[in-house]
Amino acid sequence: MTCSIDATHDVNLRSWVESANQTDTDFPIQNLPFGVFQRPGSPEPPHIGVAIGDRILDLAACYAVGLLQDLPEPLQVACVASVLNPLMAMGRSASSPLRHHVSQLLQAGNPPPSADKILVPMADAEMRVPALIGDYTDFYASIFHATNVGKLFRPDNPLLPNYKYVPIAYHGRASSIVASNTPIQRPSGQRKRPEDNAPGFTASQMLDYELEVGCFVGLGNELGESIALEQAEEHLFGLCLVNDWSARDIQAWEYQPLGPFLAKSFATSLSPWVVTLEALAPFRSSAFTRPADDPSPLPYLTSAANQQSGGINLTLEVFLSSAQMRQEGREPLRLSQTNFQKMYWTVAQMLTHHTSNGCNLRPGDLFASGTVSGAEAGTQGCLLELTQRGSQPIALPTGEMRSFLQEGDEVILRGYCEKEGYVRIGLGECRGRVVS
Amino acid sequence: MTCSIDATHDVNLRSWVESANQTDTDFPIQNLPFGVFQRPGSPEPPHIGVAIGDRILDLAACYAVGLLQDLPEPLQVACVASVLNPLMAMGRSASSPLRHHVSQLLQAGNPPPSADKILVPMADAEMRVPALIGDYTDFYASIFHATNVGKLFRPDNPLLPNYKYVPIAYHGRASSIVASNTPIQRPSGQRKRPEDNAPGFTASQMLDYELEVGCFVGLGNELGESIALEQAEEHLFGLCLVNDWSARDIQAWEYQPLGPFLAKSFATSLSPWVVTLEALAPFRSSAFTRPADDPSPLPYLTSAANQQSGGINLTLEVFLSSAQMRQEGREPLRLSQTNFQKMYWTVAQMLTHHTSNGCNLRPGDLFASGTVSGAEAGTQGCLLELTQRGSQPIALPTGEMRSFLQEGDEVILRGYCEKEGYVRIGLGECRGRVVS
Repeated sequence: MTCSIDATHDVNLRSWVESANQTDTDFPIQNLPFGVFQRPGSPEPPHIGVAIGDRILDLAACYAVGLLQDLPEPLQVACVASVLNPLMAMGRSASSPLRHHVSQLLQAGNPPPSADKILVPMADAEMRVPALIGDYTDFYASIFHATNVGKLFRPDNPLLPNYKYVPIAYHGRASSIVASNTPIQRPSGQRKRPEDNAPGFTASQMLDYELEVGCFVGLGNELGESIALEQAEEHLFGLCLVNDWSARDIQAWEYQPLGPFLAKSFATSLSPWVVTLEALAPFRSSAFTRPADDPSPLPYLTSAANQQSGGINLTLEVFLSSAQMRQEGREPLRLSQTNFQKMYWTVAQMLTHHTSNGCNLRPGDLFASGTVSGAEAGTQGCLLELTQRGSQPIALPTGEMRSFLQEGDEVILRGYCEKEGYVRIGLGECRGRVVS
Repeated sequence: MTCSIDATHDVNLRSWVESANQTDTDFPIQNLPFGVFQRPGSPEPPHIGVAIGDRILDLAACYAVGLLQDLPEPLQVACVASVLNPLMAMGRSASSPLRHHVSQLLQAGNPPPSADKILVPMADAEMRVPALIGDYTDFYASIFHATNVGKLFRPDNPLLPNYKYVPIAYHGRASSIVASNTPIQRPSGQRKRPEDNAPGFTASQMLDYELEVGCFVGLGNELGESIALEQAEEHLFGLCLVNDWSARDIQAWEYQPLGPFLAKSFATSLSPWVVTLEALAPFRSSAFTRPADDPSPLPYLTSAANQQSGGINLTLEVFLSSAQMRQEGREPLRLSQTNFQKMYWTVAQMLTHHTSNGCNLRPGDLFASGTVSGAEAGTQGCLLELTQRGSQPIALPTGEMRSFLQEGDEVILRGYCEKEGYVRIGLGECRGRVVS
């Protein structure tokens, strides 16, 4: 079911792009994630690129100098698009050969004579949302998050009866998905505090982030056809980081009975690089081990392969940097560190459940995992949990206190995979700064 | 705020398309709704058309024979697109002149010499979803529907405390929106009946329709900008009928705490013709009159103009035709008749609320009203209400009983506006037949 480990993962591979050989880079030659970028001031539409060290391999430029000519023509066409959708639509049988081709192109030895034409410094590029996202779905797949949040609202009964059977999800807003580094405007909306007789309309006072992992759909499915768990990963292109910004006061007042709406739809930030399932092959792990008294998933969400290797050993971190911290020259403060392996449902189970009613997924559709939290202190993926709905504010190194986000706060999500015998790969960063 | 009544609404206008002058047509020359159609077997991309009697005025053909040459060039370009989005994106200042131009083109007198080239019989055309729908939102704007459904689940407390303040809505699935006449496949999913110890995965046994009105967004707004109530209708292109098919057993089990997901995302049907706000001008009415002890809407949802003419006097009907009824040559049975005027929130309030947090709407985005129900028997817009969750089945003329939909059942939604001194206009039909 999962992708296999092959020559592109070889720990001994080195690139002629020197920065890709440093041990702390997110983008060694074993990673090769795809993104879409624009050189500032360029009149051309955005290009597809591959991250390598601190450079971007420009696939449109590679095409122009003839470096893609050994690839099948439809694949070449997909490489010169302005979004990843055509490449995603071709399925793994197309994107895997491209990974092998790019790996060879970047391997140490003599760089091609056109090296200066095909590389762009990341610092000079403006990253875009990498695909046209037709639909965005947000899951709720961390049982720790669901339990932590449930405890705040229903102390006696934190987890609802459907949780261990249904990979809970809701439809999100696609239009307000933005690229990393896009400023995040504090939303206004209706809120009603316990002390209020009636709601008022004000700027949200409980602005929060949510640490999530996003999954881009590759090959789609027709309306009315569902995707079996065994085939699910064939339809997954790759992963990125997602910050599903949330206004908790708006959410608390609006969400009954149909779920979150304006509390979420003002902005969702994505990290720019999509790390493929091929790149993640060495870091697959068993699925979450359910406690002995938990029910087994229903048959359509069960397979031996999913249990054995459906998980992903992906470390996730959230950092916060306030305006005052930056003024004082301080490093961002790490608020939490957790692991994607702890999710109750795997990415394959999420995708299969999503299509189990015949719902069609289209190439470039995005689904996110929901907030990734663990059970222990310091592993929670949002302020709602970390500060217990604001009642236990966090002290910043400047002496500032944070219950929820303030103007000037920058939230930085990071993710990376490490494993003995393999080169560390990273998802890069997802950044967003709150403005008023 | 609302569009004004002008020469295009003149009760005395007649068309040289004779079928448009019949009193029972949905599409007299005073209506002029836009749609997108394909001639079966034609290799060309779909064309934009205007419904007139039982014919379609083909705007691409009009362009080809020079009948649009007096219009501004960007408007001509929008008329030859394959979807309505470019026309919608231009805003009312563009679409209104087109309405006047088409009205003159079709007025009785001498038809243009090219009449046979620019008209297509509706019977020969295949209607498409008229726009690329970036995001689909579903409101819950009928207080009668919310109360009726609430009573089934919470007899003592049917209406939640936020209802009279918040135009409740949730994000829907855009990928599974289909054109009228697309067969509707019964979805499978998890359900758990009261007598079950654990959920099972089966075909839904509680398949329902929902009678709704859809609103297409015209001019969009930028992320971070909200649209004031006074400007809201400038951003609304027009209305259609929506059947938001629902699997009630899946919904009951999955919807806590994040709202409906797979219970809805298997299919949503649209009627093919988008009736513009210009066409609806004579049929505007006051907004819903809140009972004296209901709170006033918050200031951002309040305006004198909205109160005076924010409503739409639009009669809505649902018909059912079973396979056996068709076999026996029987007419479809009317299950309910209601009016869009009874909604607790106006379309302008829905749009303004949607953008009140800075959420961006894009041209072609769709929001639906939620099920339109009234207080009296026979005015409820779904079977869940009509049959009291299946406990009071409906008798069909064949002797068949219906708690929920069965294979072969065809659901037909119809809508029309009538007013003394004006010509009746219709929204046409939204049809869908259940298949297994």
